[in-house]
Amino acid sequence: MSESRIRNAALRSKIMSADQAAALILDGAHVGMSGFTGAGYPKAVPAALAARMNAKHAAGEHFKIGVWTGASTAPELDGALAKADGIELRMPYQSDPNCRKRINAGELDYIDIHLSHVAQYVWFGFFGKLDVAVVEVAGIREDGRLIPSSSVGNNKTWLDQADKIILEVNRWQNPALEGMHDIYYGTDLPPHRRPIPLITAHDRIGQPYFFCDPDKVIAVIETDAPDRNTAFSPPDLVSRAIAGNILDFLEHEVKKGRLPPELLPLQSGVGNVANAVMDGLQHGPFEGLSSFTEVLQDGMLNLIKSGKMEFASATALSLSPEAAEEFNRDVALYRKKVILRPQEISNHPELIRRLGVIAMNGLIEADIYGNVNSTHIRGTSIMNGIGGSGDFARNAYLSIFMTPSTAKNGAISCIVPMVTHVDHTEHDVQVIVTEQGLADLRGLPPRRRAQEIIARCAHPDYRPALEDYFARALRESPGRHTPHLMNEAFSFLDAWKAAETRINSARAAE
Amino acid sequence: MSESRIRNAALRSKIMSADQAAALILDGAHVGMSGFTGAGYPKAVPAALAARMNAKHAAGEHFKIGVWTGASTAPELDGALAKADGIELRMPYQSDPNCRKRINAGELDYIDIHLSHVAQYVWFGFFGKLDVAVVEVAGIREDGRLIPSSSVGNNKTWLDQADKIILEVNRWQNPALEGMHDIYYGTDLPPHRRPIPLITAHDRIGQPYFFCDPDKVIAVIETDAPDRNTAFSPPDLVSRAIAGNILDFLEHEVKKGRLPPELLPLQSGVGNVANAVMDGLQHGPFEGLSSFTEVLQDGMLNLIKSGKMEFASATALSLSPEAAEEFNRDVALYRKKVILRPQEISNHPELIRRLGVIAMNGLIEADIYGNVNSTHIRGTSIMNGIGGSGDFARNAYLSIFMTPSTAKNGAISCIVPMVTHVDHTEHDVQVIVTEQGLADLRGLPPRRRAQEIIARCAHPDYRPALEDYFARALRESPGRHTPHLMNEAFSFLDAWKAAETRINSARAAE
Repeated sequence: MSESRIRNAALRSKIMSADQAAALILDGAHVGMSGFTGAGYPKAVPAALAARMNAKHAAGEHFKIGVWTGASTAPELDGALAKADGIELRMPYQSDPNCRKRINAGELDYIDIHLSHVAQYVWFGFFGKLDVAVVEVAGIREDGRLIPSSSVGNNKTWLDQADKIILEVNRWQNPALEGMHDIYYGTDLPPHRRPIPLITAHDRIGQPYFFCDPDKVIAVIETDAPDRNTAFSPPDLVSRAIAGNILDFLEHEVKKGRLPPELLPLQSGVGNVANAVMDGLQHGPFEGLSSFTEVLQDGMLNLIKSGKMEFASATALSLSPEAAEEFNRDVALYRKKVILRPQEISNHPELIRRLGVIAMNGLIEADIYGNVNSTHIRGTSIMNGIGGSGDFARNAYLSIFMTPSTAKNGAISCIVPMVTHVDHTEHDVQVIVTEQGLADLRGLPPRRRAQEIIARCAHPDYRPALEDYFARALRESPGRHTPHLMNEAFSFLDAWKAAETRINSARAAE
Repeated sequence: MSESRIRNAALRSKIMSADQAAALILDGAHVGMSGFTGAGYPKAVPAALAARMNAKHAAGEHFKIGVWTGASTAPELDGALAKADGIELRMPYQSDPNCRKRINAGELDYIDIHLSHVAQYVWFGFFGKLDVAVVEVAGIREDGRLIPSSSVGNNKTWLDQADKIILEVNRWQNPALEGMHDIYYGTDLPPHRRPIPLITAHDRIGQPYFFCDPDKVIAVIETDAPDRNTAFSPPDLVSRAIAGNILDFLEHEVKKGRLPPELLPLQSGVGNVANAVMDGLQHGPFEGLSSFTEVLQDGMLNLIKSGKMEFASATALSLSPEAAEEFNRDVALYRKKVILRPQEISNHPELIRRLGVIAMNGLIEADIYGNVNSTHIRGTSIMNGIGGSGDFARNAYLSIFMTPSTAKNGAISCIVPMVTHVDHTEHDVQVIVTEQGLADLRGLPPRRRAQEIIARCAHPDYRPALEDYFARALRESPGRHTPHLMNEAFSFLDAWKAAETRINSARAAE
């Protein structure tokens, strides 16, 4: 492998074991790791680092680091380091259960940031110095430039900003990834910034490689391990109904002349509902689709395969094992149809607005006035994070949020009087869709929005309670622009308590 | 006046009275009016229209219109039409007391939109057809192009999108305004958008005039009336203290190398605190300042006059009577130092992020985790609207929110456990400053933010209650990422009730 994947002699001389490399990371370091939605994260160093942390902690020594990434990684990274209690501060997005548990126990500091903001804030110096970059690549060229792997994320920034660099060269990554990436080196700091010269989703504005100062590289590790590649469940009835409602809406917009027949570039959040929408598009009337999104998932890969989608721009692949196999098998096709970019480009407000992206993101709860909570359970516990949803929703041509109308087997309504945490304000939410129907909020003042959301999106089991709240708020609210009964705005939280009690009793009875 | 200000013969033939013009606006029409923060709004037609509405209503007929503007106008427009109960729907920002009263009584629909979104949503067709544009201009050229007046706002869009156009040519507006504007005609609809070629605040990318299809013009009215030109109070002690805290912070950032000595382009919201900051800059150490903002107010004019500010880009002048006189007296200087642009350009996310604007905006209340309410009193009544604060805060290099720590003579704390309405989320607020101090939230997770905001921004009278809330939330909150006691998150609303009771008793005793 050294021969074929690590073609630069100077860097080849720095090959060592993950344990040796992990020993070069010191207590208190800020570490920029590669990785975006389970793709392209380092596979070996984090585990070695976790082992070292455990050893240090057992010896009574302090050992914690700051972990900065692209987005979510995998159990081998976030999970291992969180279990070892080795993370002081985590940013910007994560989805690991062990990490989440520590965050919500107040044991681990977590900063939730728009994904388009992360790189520039580091460049601005707002988070302090980045000490070490730990970045997975698919290979190292003779000239020392790096071939990115299955995600780009913030790697360009980590490599440029870190004092020291640890590279993991992963033989599992398809060598044909070479040439698929577009790394833009034209960003600068104000007041020296220029327009980003991208005008379609398939424009190439950079180069396929990362620059890397070889003098900063302190270790090169060889790995051969797959990305997380979580399996996808096929769309269930609820997801299909949501997707159907979105497709009907898009067709309606085309008929009205507000969208071209090939639509506009699609952005799609992660998860099963998003995948169901892609699946729906597979059987829908639209041809010549494109995407400008964060993550390429199975559904989008299928659209490319079938010819429905002509082009996809993303910052990461996030494929099931089957789709990853499919991708590797037919990589010659996909390299022509897919570009992976840094997340500061994939999520850039300038580009999202210019391209007129159709943004489709999930939510935890929406309220009757169209405010959306994407991050917090009951207002206090983080689920994952805002990710790029804000970048896309704010700047999109169409900003769609989608969710099943209920959660916890119907015990919780996802439409509530007032959300317990706001990630997307009433100013940024144009369409809310559930399996019950779709509320088109464009051009509607708050009271009209409430009527639409309750009538079209709420589950029938919760509609009477929401109607009752709204009717009483209309009569009793001190102000009637956004009528609320502030002392019962969070009354739907009682359902959470009831659901918990039931779950706990059931557990006790087992 | 016809001779000098209306130089196009075809349009001169359409001169008529405001009453005649108002009679051309029909019940149910969507009307796009000029006007931004009390500048450049039509002075004659709205009053004539209000009289017509009153007459129709007295005759038992229905007569209401949709009023779309740039931002706030004046009593002669919003006030007159609201008093006549002639507004069906108002957007996007307003500050008229009569209008506000009707909105909060639930009698008038109001849509509160990011100012950078308005023009494009109209182009997208999201608000339906624009029937009539009523636009004040400073003059009409021989070739039919229009000389903008003291604000640009959405006028380009209204003139392009409306079926019919009514022009008010206001002799009061300084003829030397000609040449000061920069109207960019390069915006397009996706997928045809290109980069906006502006790279400094003083770049000219358009032309100084509006195009106008003369066949669409149904009336030209001659007026001679001043803009609203509200007087400014000199900065009080609290405003000065806030300004002082901001200046200290900016000096600190320059020392740390995170800002250049001439800072970056400033954006400043309207009002006395904003003006105090400008006043503070007048006596501060910074030279070679520039602004990329919505509104040019007295304080900024003084900075230009003194030579501290080299250039200002805005969409409107909003000057006191004295400053307006000063502006007119020395217009030869100011024309070289000021550009007025359409608000889709002055507030464009692409440009705000590219230029690295320092955004400074007011707020109604902020919570301990850094969420900001800019629009709602007690969560239900609108104050004015979000204006451009979201455009700037989200995309700024530095996003500063400023407020006195208390309102209503100390009866209300502006720092609360949880805001009753969210306009700017925790993801978009970097700095909160009151007369008490400044909380720098960059890089801080929620619990650390709470400590900073309570310790540095809250008024000492309210600090113990906030500390107590936070301490108990830390212990009792179900999740500790963002600790809250949801059943008392709005408990500070009780202070509103108490304040109201006191005010009412005092009134009763009079």
